[in-house]
Amino acid sequence: MQNLLYVLPFFGVLGLLYVVWKSAWVAKQDAGTDKMKKIAGHIAEGAMAFLKAEYKVLIIFVACVSVLLAVTANSETSHPLVGLSFVLGAFSSALAGFIGMRVATKANVRTTNAARTSLGKALEVAFTGGSVMGMGVVGIGVLGLSVLFLIYSKMFGVDSQANLNQVITIITGFSFGASSIALFARVGGGIYTKAADVGADLVGKVEAGIPEDHPLNPATIADNVGDNVGDVAGMGADLFESYIGSIVGTMVLGAAFMTGEYILLDGDFNGLSAVLLPLSLAGVGIVMSFLGTFFVRVKEGGNPQTALNMGEIVSSLFMIVASWFIIKWMLPNEWWFKDPLYTWADPEKGTLYTSTGIFFSTIIGLVAGVVIGLITEYYTGMGKKPVLSIVRQSSTGAATNIIAGLGVGMMSTLWPTIIIAFSIIGAFHFGGLYGIAIAAVGMLSNLGIQLAVDAYGPISDNAGGIAEMSELPKEVRSRTDKLDAVGNTTAAIGKGFAIASAALTALALFGAFMTTAHVKSIDVSKANVMAGLFIGGMLPFVFSALAMGAVGRAAMAMIEEVRRQFNDIPALKAALAVMKKNGDTEVKDWSAEDQKTFHDADGSAEYGKCVEISTKAAIREMVVPGLMAVIVPVVIAFLPGFGAEALGGMLAGVTVTGVLMAIFQSNAGGAWDNAKKSFEEGVEINGKMYYKKSEPHKAAVVGDTVGDPFKDTSGPSLNILLKLMSVVALVLAPLLVPKEDVSTSTQELKPTIESVTPVVESAVK
Amino acid sequence: MQNLLYVLPFFGVLGLLYVVWKSAWVAKQDAGTDKMKKIAGHIAEGAMAFLKAEYKVLIIFVACVSVLLAVTANSETSHPLVGLSFVLGAFSSALAGFIGMRVATKANVRTTNAARTSLGKALEVAFTGGSVMGMGVVGIGVLGLSVLFLIYSKMFGVDSQANLNQVITIITGFSFGASSIALFARVGGGIYTKAADVGADLVGKVEAGIPEDHPLNPATIADNVGDNVGDVAGMGADLFESYIGSIVGTMVLGAAFMTGEYILLDGDFNGLSAVLLPLSLAGVGIVMSFLGTFFVRVKEGGNPQTALNMGEIVSSLFMIVASWFIIKWMLPNEWWFKDPLYTWADPEKGTLYTSTGIFFSTIIGLVAGVVIGLITEYYTGMGKKPVLSIVRQSSTGAATNIIAGLGVGMMSTLWPTIIIAFSIIGAFHFGGLYGIAIAAVGMLSNLGIQLAVDAYGPISDNAGGIAEMSELPKEVRSRTDKLDAVGNTTAAIGKGFAIASAALTALALFGAFMTTAHVKSIDVSKANVMAGLFIGGMLPFVFSALAMGAVGRAAMAMIEEVRRQFNDIPALKAALAVMKKNGDTEVKDWSAEDQKTFHDADGSAEYGKCVEISTKAAIREMVVPGLMAVIVPVVIAFLPGFGAEALGGMLAGVTVTGVLMAIFQSNAGGAWDNAKKSFEEGVEINGKMYYKKSEPHKAAVVGDTVGDPFKDTSGPSLNILLKLMSVVALVLAPLLVPKEDVSTSTQELKPTIESVTPVVESAVK
Repeated sequence: MQNLLYVLPFFGVLGLLYVVWKSAWVAKQDAGTDKMKKIAGHIAEGAMAFLKAEYKVLIIFVACVSVLLAVTANSETSHPLVGLSFVLGAFSSALAGFIGMRVATKANVRTTNAARTSLGKALEVAFTGGSVMGMGVVGIGVLGLSVLFLIYSKMFGVDSQANLNQVITIITGFSFGASSIALFARVGGGIYTKAADVGADLVGKVEAGIPEDHPLNPATIADNVGDNVGDVAGMGADLFESYIGSIVGTMVLGAAFMTGEYILLDGDFNGLSAVLLPLSLAGVGIVMSFLGTFFVRVKEGGNPQTALNMGEIVSSLFMIVASWFIIKWMLPNEWWFKDPLYTWADPEKGTLYTSTGIFFSTIIGLVAGVVIGLITEYYTGMGKKPVLSIVRQSSTGAATNIIAGLGVGMMSTLWPTIIIAFSIIGAFHFGGLYGIAIAAVGMLSNLGIQLAVDAYGPISDNAGGIAEMSELPKEVRSRTDKLDAVGNTTAAIGKGFAIASAALTALALFGAFMTTAHVKSIDVSKANVMAGLFIGGMLPFVFSALAMGAVGRAAMAMIEEVRRQFNDIPALKAALAVMKKNGDTEVKDWSAEDQKTFHDADGSAEYGKCVEISTKAAIREMVVPGLMAVIVPVVIAFLPGFGAEALGGMLAGVTVTGVLMAIFQSNAGGAWDNAKKSFEEGVEINGKMYYKKSEPHKAAVVGDTVGDPFKDTSGPSLNILLKLMSVVALVLAPLLVPKEDVSTSTQELKPTIESVTPVVESAVK
Repeated sequence: MQNLLYVLPFFGVLGLLYVVWKSAWVAKQDAGTDKMKKIAGHIAEGAMAFLKAEYKVLIIFVACVSVLLAVTANSETSHPLVGLSFVLGAFSSALAGFIGMRVATKANVRTTNAARTSLGKALEVAFTGGSVMGMGVVGIGVLGLSVLFLIYSKMFGVDSQANLNQVITIITGFSFGASSIALFARVGGGIYTKAADVGADLVGKVEAGIPEDHPLNPATIADNVGDNVGDVAGMGADLFESYIGSIVGTMVLGAAFMTGEYILLDGDFNGLSAVLLPLSLAGVGIVMSFLGTFFVRVKEGGNPQTALNMGEIVSSLFMIVASWFIIKWMLPNEWWFKDPLYTWADPEKGTLYTSTGIFFSTIIGLVAGVVIGLITEYYTGMGKKPVLSIVRQSSTGAATNIIAGLGVGMMSTLWPTIIIAFSIIGAFHFGGLYGIAIAAVGMLSNLGIQLAVDAYGPISDNAGGIAEMSELPKEVRSRTDKLDAVGNTTAAIGKGFAIASAALTALALFGAFMTTAHVKSIDVSKANVMAGLFIGGMLPFVFSALAMGAVGRAAMAMIEEVRRQFNDIPALKAALAVMKKNGDTEVKDWSAEDQKTFHDADGSAEYGKCVEISTKAAIREMVVPGLMAVIVPVVIAFLPGFGAEALGGMLAGVTVTGVLMAIFQSNAGGAWDNAKKSFEEGVEINGKMYYKKSEPHKAAVVGDTVGDPFKDTSGPSLNILLKLMSVVALVLAPLLVPKEDVSTSTQELKPTIESVTPVVESAVK
């Protein structure tokens, strides 16, 4: 197969066709009553308003950075076009977020409406909405990367090692663009959603005593917008970045992987095969995700969890089988490689690698991702030991609840870290640095369906909110609650998966950085590397502090606005008084006058003001942490006394601490959340049952509020921090190549290149 | 000066003479009324009971480990005597703790009694008590190390590089012994003090509504014992370990530092000068600390803080001047050194080092320790911005208070980390790895007076407690409160200092480990090193979780015991009822009958039971984290796929994350504590004043309770974790030397050794 380069984009197109097809299907579904439509309209409007405001700021950032990139690009090893790649990467990320949000804000209300008839139908709508997001992300990713590679390879040629490296270097700009947008989306989205959530909860639920998602709460629309902004767009951008980052990192490492003198040429792709392998796996992964979606089906009374699991498991099994054939087909059975970073098994020939080994590396990634997800589920799952320990310690007050939650979060770092450590060793054993990178690709290869399952969660959550606000019958809400409960589990697993993929992606980029910058070792016994390690390790702490501070400030502004509306809007004030008077009785049992006062207030809350506050705060507060992630690597790279190796130390530090802090915060937050939720159905502590509004429940609410920014703002943002910093380093790498290496690098590799050239040409033409 | 080896022990003896002299002075002071004596007796008894129980368990541990060490010792590069060193190190650490506790439990009540007459006298007693602890630690340290070096050098000779290395390797056992006892003391002490504190607070203060340190609270004696066990013995053991560790690490690195072919021999100590320098600095530091104690004086109405600062500053200045002369006297002006770990400035001669450079490295350590201490003070100090932000966020409840505190703690890692990073680079620039190690020695050189100031805090705290329990007049308590307030500041600074010194000590040991194990680089781009880095980074999280879980469990047991006593002891029950009835009025204004009931209850609380619970819990719970610290390095070192370099990666990980987590937890805890204390004098939030028992104050109490195990158990224990692991690695190092290096190492260095031999002999004889 000689035309692989031309084939790859079609996998991307396939993903996008799915997007068009299923978007239309979702749009065609009935959106329900006028009231439902109105509420959903508010949410969609708020979400788009946020995206618009965000993109307005980001355009300036993208323009500045792309110009900087173009101007500073080293003309020998890179090209000003890297600026264009950056713009395209940023645009793609934004587009993926846009598509996801657009369909999610349509699917939410249609899920609600479907829940009026059956659970199965509701699941179908919610999951299809999620799958549009998932397939959009992978489709855009594969299409963007493969088209860029095709065009640049035509422009610069891939007829020598130097040219090939140059092409891939220019493509790293794409990854950088995707990463920067991702950071702002994650941080901004995280601040948005938690400011709205905390604001809505503290004044609405606690002070005014109205239920969650109640239309009288002015912050309730902002809260639902937040679910889309944070969990759909934020999570999508996060994994889009991992996806692109892992592929690009693997391409960089693959460029040198098949060029040894002792390579045993067989098959058609030698030379380019290792470069094209990640893209091919990703492309085929789109098909496997597509196939998996057909297995997500549930009947009334069935368990949505089983349906989702089935989709993921089937798609994973397909992918494992497909990976075997793709790898066996593209890579030679065995070859020798002289990795400049390591000592070789044979001083003459290098180290022997096999295609079977690369397959094993891929599988290690896939398995590690799933297992870490399941561990996350254990530590945050309702009814499991860790959550029960928090429940128990809630009986002695908020302080012991907090201590228990912090303990659970910290303890939950144990097994994921050990799995990551052994995955690294295993993947490296089978495939060197390339093995670690391809493990990341393997983990993310069927991202299409994984993301569909992730995005399904907030859509169901929104559907429940709309059901509540539209005052639909109880069985509708109970159906959406069933979907939502599953969504919480998938969200927990998704978070674990996102962290694991971020870790491996960062390591792939780390290896790519070293190779590109000609850094031979990152030796922590050197003082500047150790200093870099300390500084890198510290960044996730400071970054988390900034994110939490931002949520605190934004929530304060929200609280004040909601309080103002409750005081200043007469209809709202009257309705609140009526609600308080009637207590827990249902609306239909109230006096006619009270019912009138209550219904008259409908729509009098100024949702827009709250949406605006969250939007403005998120945009304003995302700037400092965002810039920090981009600027610090540049400073470390060029500050006298530091340099490329210190930058490597910093990346190692930020990766290790970032992963640990992300696991700690996400799991502590998830565990607190479910400890609180446990009280809704009642829990037994020392032989006594406790329910909502009991003292232990109040203590658990404190824990949940602390956990909110942990698990939805600072925790997940760390994933991006460590990937973005690695990408920045990779983009800087050509500027950091030691002077003596720049001139010799082409010659050194000459003999190898010639033997590769004909094959490369045959692959391109 | 040829007899330096015989002189050094006398500095240690000087320290111990001070201990004898000042202990006697403290004992001679009046201990006050019978009631005071009785209470102080309870405390002293409880403290000694804990030490006894602790040592009983530790003897088993020490016996096992010392035998293991002796049996596994490599006879070529080490010796079974390393087991003896271990026992002596453990014994020294225990002895230092014993001396400190003994005098502290005498000084507390005598400080109370002195406070009945004047502030100045009270300060004198408290500080003298602290200084006995400080001088005891440094005296035992210098005496132990210098005598061991003297004996072993006589036994094995120091006439060749190999012999010298062997002598120092055997001495590392001393450091290991000190470290293991330190870990158990810190962890056990931390659990003890917080279990008692939380138990006393939650039932006594919150449930029963009796004031702090009230004699009716059965946990109050345990609480005061805890201050001694945790803050005196724990802190002493911690810094004793740093002191020994930094000196031993520097000796190991110094053994190779003066042996280059191109060394320009001048002075008398070549060959041994770099080995003996840290001991000499430490020895002279004892004298300087001694001189500093004379400057700690305060008059009635004066500020104890100024007095303590004066002592430290004067002693530091003396030390700087003395260091200059010692270094200039002992080291040649300049010399060339071929560090096997690094590339050299001159490929033929090596890298040029100067005595002035080594002096600068020392000063960098000294300054870094002080600055990090001051930063700690900023983040945890009352009236400063960080604490005020927590106070402000207490107005919206416990959750926002917790978020703010976590944010402050995380943010507080920024500057200390940057200072550590630049100190590493600076010290390395001037003196290579030896420079980093000697910076740690510099930081700790006047530990005698620094520890005196640290230990002064808990003595004053205890003095206040005794004043309260003995129902002494208000002005006595107000004097001890004044001392105590200063104690809180010094404790904060001391904690920052302890962390900084732990970081540098760990790095010194890290360098020593690499040198001893012949590890040429710790390259994080190698998979097993990166895996080690991840695992090392994770340990402080898991360790903290274990420590916090232990406090939670122990506090629960304490709470149940106190509740039981309140219910089951009739006199106590009656007195509590009477107290509740009379509310906030003073005892003397109560009815005669009530007063009788109240006074009859005096002494009916079974303090011993609570002391026993804390003791048992602490001993039981310290085992798992303690063993973890010792076992994990061994596993990593010998597990297939890991090995010496992976162990190095693990050390780097545990050092970086350990330092960050220690700063985060200590400062968050300190800031929460002072945010709560701010309410005692009243604080303004949004234009309104809030005092004790207001809603924001209750929120602040939650933060303080969360902060307690953070700042007094898990945070400070991490210091030891990272040092202990480094020491274990150093002790393992001779077993990890690659086979091909063992046989060649002596020959390789032969030419150098011969040129050194005569000088070494002249220094010994």
